Amino acid sequence: MSILIQQATILTMQDNESPFMGDIRIEGDRIVQIAGHIAVQPGDDVLDGRSKLAMPGLVNAHQHSPMSLLRGFSDDLKLMDWLDRKMLPAEARMTPEDIYWGAKLCIAEMIRSGTTAFADMYIHMNEIAEAVLETGIRASLTRGMVFMEEDGGRRLKEAVDLVQRWSGKANGRITTMFGPHSPYTCPVEPLREVIAMAVRDDIPLHIHLAETIEEVQKIHSRYNMTPTEYLVEAGMFEQTHVLLAHAVHLSASDVRRLKGMRGGVAHNPVSNLKLGCGIAPIEAMRTEGITVGLGTDGAGSATTLDMFEEIKAACWLQKLDYGDPTRLPAPDVLHMATRGSAKLLSVHDEVGMLAPGYKADLILIDLAKPHLQPIHNVESLVAYSVNGADVHTTIVDGQILMRDRKLLTLDEDELYREVNVRAKRIVEGI
Amino acid sequence: MSILIQQATILTMQDNESPFMGDIRIEGDRIVQIAGHIAVQPGDDVLDGRSKLAMPGLVNAHQHSPMSLLRGFSDDLKLMDWLDRKMLPAEARMTPEDIYWGAKLCIAEMIRSGTTAFADMYIHMNEIAEAVLETGIRASLTRGMVFMEEDGGRRLKEAVDLVQRWSGKANGRITTMFGPHSPYTCPVEPLREVIAMAVRDDIPLHIHLAETIEEVQKIHSRYNMTPTEYLVEAGMFEQTHVLLAHAVHLSASDVRRLKGMRGGVAHNPVSNLKLGCGIAPIEAMRTEGITVGLGTDGAGSATTLDMFEEIKAACWLQKLDYGDPTRLPAPDVLHMATRGSAKLLSVHDEVGMLAPGYKADLILIDLAKPHLQPIHNVESLVAYSVNGADVHTTIVDGQILMRDRKLLTLDEDELYREVNVRAKRIVEGI
Repeated sequence: MSILIQQATILTMQDNESPFMGDIRIEGDRIVQIAGHIAVQPGDDVLDGRSKLAMPGLVNAHQHSPMSLLRGFSDDLKLMDWLDRKMLPAEARMTPEDIYWGAKLCIAEMIRSGTTAFADMYIHMNEIAEAVLETGIRASLTRGMVFMEEDGGRRLKEAVDLVQRWSGKANGRITTMFGPHSPYTCPVEPLREVIAMAVRDDIPLHIHLAETIEEVQKIHSRYNMTPTEYLVEAGMFEQTHVLLAHAVHLSASDVRRLKGMRGGVAHNPVSNLKLGCGIAPIEAMRTEGITVGLGTDGAGSATTLDMFEEIKAACWLQKLDYGDPTRLPAPDVLHMATRGSAKLLSVHDEVGMLAPGYKADLILIDLAKPHLQPIHNVESLVAYSVNGADVHTTIVDGQILMRDRKLLTLDEDELYREVNVRAKRIVEGI
Repeated sequence: MSILIQQATILTMQDNESPFMGDIRIEGDRIVQIAGHIAVQPGDDVLDGRSKLAMPGLVNAHQHSPMSLLRGFSDDLKLMDWLDRKMLPAEARMTPEDIYWGAKLCIAEMIRSGTTAFADMYIHMNEIAEAVLETGIRASLTRGMVFMEEDGGRRLKEAVDLVQRWSGKANGRITTMFGPHSPYTCPVEPLREVIAMAVRDDIPLHIHLAETIEEVQKIHSRYNMTPTEYLVEAGMFEQTHVLLAHAVHLSASDVRRLKGMRGGVAHNPVSNLKLGCGIAPIEAMRTEGITVGLGTDGAGSATTLDMFEEIKAACWLQKLDYGDPTRLPAPDVLHMATRGSAKLLSVHDEVGMLAPGYKADLILIDLAKPHLQPIHNVESLVAYSVNGADVHTTIVDGQILMRDRKLLTLDEDELYREVNVRAKRIVEGI
């Protein structure tokens, strides 16, 4: 299987490299050559790159994929009403089959909007892994663990089973993490136990942190600490790669405490805005050298899973927060959505850039649109004007998952039938 | 010319009406019937509404259309660098033909993203009026007037010429306003003169207000007033319909002073975010009964002209500002983008709702997309997940301007050739 992309504008996301015109050659799951001109070889699947931008696929660093079944079901509600009256009762009704179809719906949206990899935290992870396997996307999967009631070790066992069964599967497209849910749902004993497991098995951690001011208050009243201090005290950052989702309410000293951490922060600006949570101190984190990636959170809160919305919103919020339009400029936010997120998923050695030897995870964006003309500055257009619908072709691991807007590994009609019947049943009477 | 839309989900935007399934009949420039089922008549152009949402076209209440030529040319810069080093030198090089092509580019983007009417303020308005005439969109045109240097009455004369030559033209698609640019560029004498002209000729006014904190400081040091007080003192709100663009930095007493004004405020959240200006007090204005509409501002600042981005951003910002996700819920922001903006353009008696007798300005949104499924709540989907690329068909004044994503009144290839050559010439060496 070989693919040749011809005459595209190429944004490699390599350091200090400007967009240029050229060709890209893919063999198997890898990029093998990028050059001004590459000769066609017999058997090449040739893609016309004219009027198109080739760039690394976007990496969504925080997701709850099956929540796509609940998109638009509970908007414009107070956070606790949203959670207690809508999300939790609906989620309690979801069967493993619902989870599978919800994940497929989410993956369909991601592929269509240029996302080629995602970090997921949910339950019934076998079903999500099956959806990832079938659809061809790349994912880091986490069994989310809330330790608020005794379960005889069931959650931990499921988390270990996920790691043992799925790590490295699908030609390495599937990786795994351990997922203690958050400081406010994980007392210190089980939290330390999960951290010890992560150290022992060399598995990264994926956890929510300081999403709301209420969480900060709760942790303060329980432990007289900030949520960040609570994780530091539990030893989370000593030996382990950690993916911190949200990190909205961090004090200046919290940010300094995270300096030098392995992993980094998944910023979810749309979800934070839509739930009225606040503005994460992204510029402060970047100043301390903390890696920041971008994610959407689940569709239950964010509604849209278009990473180009997150790109715009991330820039807008830092500019707003500082009253300064030079904050978080276009090249930096594109780095966050590709290489930054890839680092959070521990796949940055082969995902997040276009370079020979890297995995062939890339997208073609159609620039022949009124909102993408004229072309003064490609990075500005991508950051501030492109949306997911401009993605023409999506390739993951050398396989074309969408071509000319048509999904090749998913049956959309079947998908819409399944999700509407299931969604209706799940929310009935709630 | 008659059009029948069959079996669509219809969101009329009439008061207290939920979305329902039905047909819409258009004759000439008007909607003549909306009902559960309408029989086909000979000569009907039948549009299949299945899996589609019919709703009023969006109304963009603040634009500088030719700035689309400068999209992405000066992002991530300080406001004064943006204006003085980039925008003003580039605009000084624009010929009337450039203005014409810039306006066409802007209109192409608007039609493709579901905008059916817009309020424009710029120079060389004859060329913009020609572009409006040809492309079939609806517009309220304003010659922007900066009174910082003596010009022998040229600006005022051009403003009057625009009104006399173009008001009511193109079957009423073109209307006009007078456009004193802003408090900080209009000393009180010429400002009073324009207000007197507006009263005399019964022409509305379109003006920028309190976009930046620097403007507030400037007006305070000059007049010891807020920008709003300055306009009140000049008599602007006594007898005239006024479209106020931005109104970001309004004090609580400024908002109270605007209570009862004719016209209202065009909120441009994306431009305000991108330039780091701040959050306009939209919820406070709504509490006082002030009409609020939505606009994009020019592409030079906003980059994107997709009104669905403004819809999202408007909701997000109010939720953020109050730390409360119930602020500015979906139905309210959709009202702002349709009926609210229509009122600002003084066309609300026949534009902004779907109803018999109203102008046939409407869009069909394709819901058969992964990000628009399942359908729990149509208004939530439209506010938080739809983007401009989901618009399938755009109709203005009973004429189909886009059908199945194809523009029918514009040649896109010619457009891209023209704007790229012109844009390159305009910015060369700047």
